[in-house]
Amino acid sequence: MIIEMNRDECLEFLGHKRLVRLGCSREDQPYIMPIYVARDGDRLYAFTTFGQKIEWMRRNPLVCVEADEMESLEKWCSVIAFGQYAEMHKTPELEEERHRAHELLWQGPRTWEPGYARTILHGKRRELEPLYFRIDVGEITGRRAVSDNATIDPH
Amino acid sequence: MIIEMNRDECLEFLGHKRLVRLGCSREDQPYIMPIYVARDGDRLYAFTTFGQKIEWMRRNPLVCVEADEMESLEKWCSVIAFGQYAEMHKTPELEEERHRAHELLWQGPRTWEPGYARTILHGKRRELEPLYFRIDVGEITGRRAVSDNATIDPH
Repeated sequence: MIIEMNRDECLEFLGHKRLVRLGCSREDQPYIMPIYVARDGDRLYAFTTFGQKIEWMRRNPLVCVEADEMESLEKWCSVIAFGQYAEMHKTPELEEERHRAHELLWQGPRTWEPGYARTILHGKRRELEPLYFRIDVGEITGRRAVSDNATIDPH
Repeated sequence: MIIEMNRDECLEFLGHKRLVRLGCSREDQPYIMPIYVARDGDRLYAFTTFGQKIEWMRRNPLVCVEADEMESLEKWCSVIAFGQYAEMHKTPELEEERHRAHELLWQGPRTWEPGYARTILHGKRRELEPLYFRIDVGEITGRRAVSDNATIDPH
């Protein structure tokens, strides 16, 4: 049985998963990257280093966030959200929110972000330039499958 | 230690994972969906039912495919590919390839595809219209992390 999830359930799932896929687009060429997020209400916080994806999102802030979980063919969950990229510059106005994002991102299991890893490519270490951003979640949809004999929360 | 994967390693990883994320875009709004694929050389085969994503890819065949695996903070793999969507219509020219795609997709563990699941939404069962397509993989990049004391295949 497949059930449509409501907005709260979808947001909760994204916040719980933490490892999601973020999609951006340049001249209608989509690009997807795995990224860790921390959720606060309708906002997802993330950090990364400067790179192609940041250039793309600066030009076009329309993004998509996807998370899924597949326990079995009868038990899975899939959430897809549209959102807007917003960079969190080091300005006094954003200081509090940056701090909050930092806290949320570093609590719980240690954050993994391929883009942020100390990378030795072509024999030299890349410079790391950490960068915080948030995704303001707009439209969000989710579906989950439960086996017929599972108990379903009526709420 | 983070290692860049070559094209063959990347393609092999996508074919091995089977569950990947496919990104498409309409008017620079990206959209991501989880989907099962089967690989044959530089091609990824998939099936789904007609829906928004198919409409989007018919209009704009530029897509992105992403797969990742995270065993631990020190052992993970991430592959991102650009590609081109090609629908496999029921024409005599494509019959053989459709047959091959079908075989590849249904061998091994049973295929899961949320879009293909028998869905009861708003109390009525959706009509299923299975549709085969392939992604011709273009540029592909991948990185994997290995712990320093792991043995690395020199090839």
